[in-house]
Amino acid sequence: MKPFFQVKTSEEIHKIIQTLPCLPEEKIGLNDGLNRVLSKAVFSPEDLPHFPRATMDGFAVRARDTFGASEAVPALLTLAGEIGMGQQAREPIEPGYCFRIATGGMLPPESDAVAMIEHSQQLDDQTIEIFKPVSPLDYVIQPGEDIKKAQPVLPAGVRLRPQDLGILAGLGITDFRVYRQPKVAIISTGDEIVSVEEQPPPGFIRDINSITLQALTAKVGALPDFLGRTRDNYEQLKALCEKGLNQADMILISGGSSVGARDYTLEVIHSFPGSEILAHGISISPGKPTILARIGDKILWGLPGHVVSAMIVFTLFVKTSLHQLEGETISKQPPGFQARLSRNMASSQGREDYIRVSLEKQGTEWLAIPILGKSGLISTMVKADGLIRIDQNCEGLEKGEWVEVMLF
Amino acid sequence: MKPFFQVKTSEEIHKIIQTLPCLPEEKIGLNDGLNRVLSKAVFSPEDLPHFPRATMDGFAVRARDTFGASEAVPALLTLAGEIGMGQQAREPIEPGYCFRIATGGMLPPESDAVAMIEHSQQLDDQTIEIFKPVSPLDYVIQPGEDIKKAQPVLPAGVRLRPQDLGILAGLGITDFRVYRQPKVAIISTGDEIVSVEEQPPPGFIRDINSITLQALTAKVGALPDFLGRTRDNYEQLKALCEKGLNQADMILISGGSSVGARDYTLEVIHSFPGSEILAHGISISPGKPTILARIGDKILWGLPGHVVSAMIVFTLFVKTSLHQLEGETISKQPPGFQARLSRNMASSQGREDYIRVSLEKQGTEWLAIPILGKSGLISTMVKADGLIRIDQNCEGLEKGEWVEVMLF
Repeated sequence: MKPFFQVKTSEEIHKIIQTLPCLPEEKIGLNDGLNRVLSKAVFSPEDLPHFPRATMDGFAVRARDTFGASEAVPALLTLAGEIGMGQQAREPIEPGYCFRIATGGMLPPESDAVAMIEHSQQLDDQTIEIFKPVSPLDYVIQPGEDIKKAQPVLPAGVRLRPQDLGILAGLGITDFRVYRQPKVAIISTGDEIVSVEEQPPPGFIRDINSITLQALTAKVGALPDFLGRTRDNYEQLKALCEKGLNQADMILISGGSSVGARDYTLEVIHSFPGSEILAHGISISPGKPTILARIGDKILWGLPGHVVSAMIVFTLFVKTSLHQLEGETISKQPPGFQARLSRNMASSQGREDYIRVSLEKQGTEWLAIPILGKSGLISTMVKADGLIRIDQNCEGLEKGEWVEVMLF
Repeated sequence: MKPFFQVKTSEEIHKIIQTLPCLPEEKIGLNDGLNRVLSKAVFSPEDLPHFPRATMDGFAVRARDTFGASEAVPALLTLAGEIGMGQQAREPIEPGYCFRIATGGMLPPESDAVAMIEHSQQLDDQTIEIFKPVSPLDYVIQPGEDIKKAQPVLPAGVRLRPQDLGILAGLGITDFRVYRQPKVAIISTGDEIVSVEEQPPPGFIRDINSITLQALTAKVGALPDFLGRTRDNYEQLKALCEKGLNQADMILISGGSSVGARDYTLEVIHSFPGSEILAHGISISPGKPTILARIGDKILWGLPGHVVSAMIVFTLFVKTSLHQLEGETISKQPPGFQARLSRNMASSQGREDYIRVSLEKQGTEWLAIPILGKSGLISTMVKADGLIRIDQNCEGLEKGEWVEVMLF
């Protein structure tokens, strides 16, 4: 067996990931924008709103005409008419006059506030009593108050959320430039692997990793493509990798936990011109037997065969490298979740440990309950809600300590 | 204007939602399973794994043959052969013998542990030195250790994550029953609304809500279908609602913040046989002018016209009602995120307030910074990372208090 010859810490891996290239841009429409990453900052082409809008049902007034009004001595205003929704209010308001207006309606020139319907009373066809003074700009959204012309709306590198699409829609920005979504080729290796549809004979197991990795890839907004299974065989693996390099931006190879398979993966990588092994081994547990390589602009991850280890490496690193590939530089991802550890957890110094935990509410606090179990057991991941980290300079964590849970 | 005649608290709305029906089941395959909700509990059809597997590279042994071994006095074992990956180990191991085995390989009968390659040395073709004793079951996954035959694998009502699909794959469960995904018809109303593509004249604004609600719907795993815009007009709204009732499970009507529009929505609902207004007004701010109705098995939400209010009502209630419709009873959603409030926030007693906040890391803690701004301003949602709640029995929150942030 070749030893791990280029073991990196998780910090080093994250630094390497930051140096990896990102994908080219493309133009898309609003309806395809959810979860895509903007590649150019967007500036506002106009004021939003472009006219003063009422935020309450009531009467458009000149605020000064209501000063001093009270229940006892209301301001008496003459009703000049009604401003309908979607109606351009052209006629300026004269001193002592008001217009009936609904939420969202356009304020007429010279009016600077809305008196709420709840604080008014209609005396007759022409006369409105206002019982409460309003200040200028009360219950009004001014032109450009939401966003002003030429102001930055959204920065490059942000993943678009529903509200981000909303502001683009409000400004009439119907198409925009985003980075292409990463295409991810997924390959399962191993002499002992059979397809999910087959009944595995003794010594064989079904291919758990490919379905799990496809789902993880889709969940972070990339496009998975399962290329197939290969035995631990140089030629077969090389052929599948060639296919992956032709049609995808990233290749994930998993399985092949046997000695020979690990060596084949390295050999196959080396056989491509311009290939570079960036890491061979990560000093974390579980997840050590991981390979990160670059072949031209394409990225290749060799993931551990055990599904738990593969999922942890995906969660910690592959996900970040997919975000990097897609140009996401501003993360709106939820930060880790604070919880109290339910029991003492020992750890070897010099090794960064990741512990699966489930979360349980206890009173007002959340408890992180470690799930112990071998990394070959997928059932431990089914029970888990997230991961906690024990630093390599730390001998363990104590019961009751605050921990940050990475949710999955 | 008709007053809100059936104002409910948010607690009451959540109770009503729990009484709403859920959708029928359908059968799907593994590749379509991500984020779908299981409608029948799954039990294991077999032991996983179905044979004893090595979790390390090394030698399959009878543990007792290594007892007492040390660097000075190693156990000497005779190499009986190698167990390849995917090879059924039929030949039992004799006392004093061992088999070379790789991670994932099948242990032969009578062997009960794996001695790690790191603690061994090959003396000659036939002789292996073992330097460290192993206990029975060391570095072995036993049959059924991941999951035993007939054990529950996943309960009904769970939304499937990558690892859940992984365990189904491992057990050869290639199809299973889930609830149908909710189809959501989205309708925008308002005399002042123009399409996103148009340049709105003074008094008009572009339709922000429909794109935002489509994205929110897609984000929670339901299927949005934008039916179109209608003016504040009974016949037009009724026609679109009829279309929605024919082809969707839920209708979202938004906009129509004007007095007349609100009344039309109620009239249209009443015009359908078997319709029932479940709530007209929710005692929260923003978001009060909300309608919840049921028409047969279909659910209708009349959302506030202001996009911020509409998004908040969606986040608090519509999302939950979509989960209910899809039969999700076990939530693996991340719980609210704990942060410290950056400033005092006053609130009116007797009203439940929702405040938009952005999150910022300060040292080891997270700060929730309130974003103040009218509910007509979509830019406040673009700046926000989540919402905090001020209880109706609370006069406000103090700077430095812990708050729970609902992320969006």
